[in-house]
Amino acid sequence: MAENVGVGLIGLGTVGSVVAARLIGSWELLTTRAGATPVLRRVAVRDPGKPRDVDLRSVPLCDDPFAVVDDPSVSIVVEVMGGMDAAAAAVERALQAGKTVVTANKALIARAGPRLWTLAESRGAGLWFEAAAGAGLPIVAVLRDSLRADSVNSLDAVINTTTNVVLTRMRNTGERLDEALLDAQRRGFAETDPSSDLDGWDASYKLVILAWLATGAPVSVDSVDRRGVRDIDRIDMAYTGQLGYSVKLLAHAEIRQQPGGVHLRVRPTAVPEGHPCFDADDSDNAVIITSDLAGTVVLRGVGGGGASTASAVLSDIVAAVRARARQPGPPHTQPRQLLSDEEVEVAGYLRLIVDDSADARALVLQALEDRGVPVIEAVDKPPLDGPFPQLIVLTGAAPRAVHDRALETLDTLSSVRQIAVSLDRVEPR
Amino acid sequence: MAENVGVGLIGLGTVGSVVAARLIGSWELLTTRAGATPVLRRVAVRDPGKPRDVDLRSVPLCDDPFAVVDDPSVSIVVEVMGGMDAAAAAVERALQAGKTVVTANKALIARAGPRLWTLAESRGAGLWFEAAAGAGLPIVAVLRDSLRADSVNSLDAVINTTTNVVLTRMRNTGERLDEALLDAQRRGFAETDPSSDLDGWDASYKLVILAWLATGAPVSVDSVDRRGVRDIDRIDMAYTGQLGYSVKLLAHAEIRQQPGGVHLRVRPTAVPEGHPCFDADDSDNAVIITSDLAGTVVLRGVGGGGASTASAVLSDIVAAVRARARQPGPPHTQPRQLLSDEEVEVAGYLRLIVDDSADARALVLQALEDRGVPVIEAVDKPPLDGPFPQLIVLTGAAPRAVHDRALETLDTLSSVRQIAVSLDRVEPR
Repeated sequence: MAENVGVGLIGLGTVGSVVAARLIGSWELLTTRAGATPVLRRVAVRDPGKPRDVDLRSVPLCDDPFAVVDDPSVSIVVEVMGGMDAAAAAVERALQAGKTVVTANKALIARAGPRLWTLAESRGAGLWFEAAAGAGLPIVAVLRDSLRADSVNSLDAVINTTTNVVLTRMRNTGERLDEALLDAQRRGFAETDPSSDLDGWDASYKLVILAWLATGAPVSVDSVDRRGVRDIDRIDMAYTGQLGYSVKLLAHAEIRQQPGGVHLRVRPTAVPEGHPCFDADDSDNAVIITSDLAGTVVLRGVGGGGASTASAVLSDIVAAVRARARQPGPPHTQPRQLLSDEEVEVAGYLRLIVDDSADARALVLQALEDRGVPVIEAVDKPPLDGPFPQLIVLTGAAPRAVHDRALETLDTLSSVRQIAVSLDRVEPR
Repeated sequence: MAENVGVGLIGLGTVGSVVAARLIGSWELLTTRAGATPVLRRVAVRDPGKPRDVDLRSVPLCDDPFAVVDDPSVSIVVEVMGGMDAAAAAVERALQAGKTVVTANKALIARAGPRLWTLAESRGAGLWFEAAAGAGLPIVAVLRDSLRADSVNSLDAVINTTTNVVLTRMRNTGERLDEALLDAQRRGFAETDPSSDLDGWDASYKLVILAWLATGAPVSVDSVDRRGVRDIDRIDMAYTGQLGYSVKLLAHAEIRQQPGGVHLRVRPTAVPEGHPCFDADDSDNAVIITSDLAGTVVLRGVGGGGASTASAVLSDIVAAVRARARQPGPPHTQPRQLLSDEEVEVAGYLRLIVDDSADARALVLQALEDRGVPVIEAVDKPPLDGPFPQLIVLTGAAPRAVHDRALETLDTLSSVRQIAVSLDRVEPR
């Protein structure tokens, strides 16, 4: 029987709802991963009377964050309410009481992370904030758990989804910023008051957290060389495009080792084709880390959004449960069935040497279709080594066994001299 | 005073040498990160008499791995000798004795990982193997520490550097496989006997480890649907290229949740343009993880190589030291100097509205050069809103303060009507 660990949730918005639903619905998976069962005990929201999509079963709702923090059955406090003062008060109170805190609050960690960390250490509490830095990108784990012996020299990142959605739309449609912003608001990628995003605050919070993790340097948010995107003109989207660039709100940290120094900036930046941030469009986020041993590491993935942020929060909850139990995080071994060749689908690239007859091509394509292998494209090529022409066929997704049987059939066709090559192929999206 | 933790090293090749040099030369950084000082106590090599590049100071060399394991001053055993039987014996003996093991041995973890893990757990020992799965890519940390609450649905990876170097060269030069292989051997990217790489074993080991971490499924290496690259013909590199594909030795894992099933394959695969593996060329490695909450996460970085593998080994040593002391891994807070505007270099994109005079362009470019700002490219553009033409200037790297002063100068030029836009720019490599 796995032990239970009580979880309290402050905030039940987009992220909080997914977290609550997983804690209630996926407790078996979480127990396997965590070694104990995280159980949702109490939830605080602004308006407990409001109808909710998520079914909380019998978990009590209240409107007081402190009631969650002070609940003796709660040992892990998950703060996903956002904002500054009320969130800071709840988190501090929890850490003071020696409870573990998991938070997605960028502004809070950027402004008070080092102080809260010291508080947590002095109280034997835990402070987890993967979701505060990169949302769905596992950037905190990489910086903290993976480059532990490296000296990080620079960070470059596209980490604000709102501005990235707006800039991408400006580039693709030629719209003005205000037009692209309206579209982003309609699609749920920008808030009614988008100042924190457009003025570069959100990206600055994240950059400050990343730089702290990478270097230990507690840089003040106000010392970030920060410039927003409000002035970006659509004509410059066009001109930079013609020159092979894409304009991004780029967050950049530069770390000098000897003598030590650090520079953080968030600025609209023309990024050249081939750069990993160049085509990180829309809600795609990207972080590039250069360090002395690992070299350059690039992380890309979906930035904001309820599910990816919830993924980071839940991952921290699992880690926090493990850490409370003082267990190392093992890869839990669990046998799985191997899929058969009838179950695994592949697409293919075939190169055939075919007869010099008018109907060779048609016979091949017909045979493939008859055997259940879709033909996506067929290209005739001149003879290579011998007298016979070649035929390239891109086949569509079909089970491996179906592909294999179709190849056997092709092998028996008199119009097919040789199956020169058969490769797997990934289909373009 | 930080406590000391004894480290024993088995193997002093490319990776082992970097690890030893760091343990000896960078002990202060490692102590800061680890909370205790990892001290190199003993090293085992095949031939202790051979001259070495690395200065081991007074650390004793021997030729017996067991002597390292049994040394009572050693509590962390680092195995970077490679191979199967001798390495397995040393690792097992260390775990039996309750010592912590850090290993970069792919074959060992792929074939015996779950068994060694169980042994480690039963003895209260630690087993760390970040370097075994992705070398420099922090893939183990991401799968184990960051997607803790996600269900992983698939993995796609270019994780064998030798074949990737060979295939990249075949595509770029039109050479045959044997020619490209010779070149890779000359450049140190392929061993004298490249069978393990060319036949897909190395990629299969890594894939099995990744799938184990992602799903808990202990898949046998022999059940990987494995096909090497020996048959790849240069003509297919050309034809796939014409169709918009790049041939990669792609490692793929497919995980079905309901009913549970898993499929692992390593096969030469035509990958389309736009796919994150398409341009992961030469020693670039890439891993794409799709999971239910985080969505798609892409990791890219340098695969093999002594430094990046050593980065992973050292990171594990730091983690192991931390775990022995039962400390959580905090971001160590340490103030850093902020760099000034005279120290931070930037390149730029300028859009100017200029006079309709013949020498306006020359005056602008001269003013920039006079103020120390290099001009990379200048493009004339027709008037936009008013009567005056525009001038686009790409400026080269110069300190921010130099750029700012040059802009002030431009502002005073009578031939410059307006500085319409000034953006930062990343220079193409």
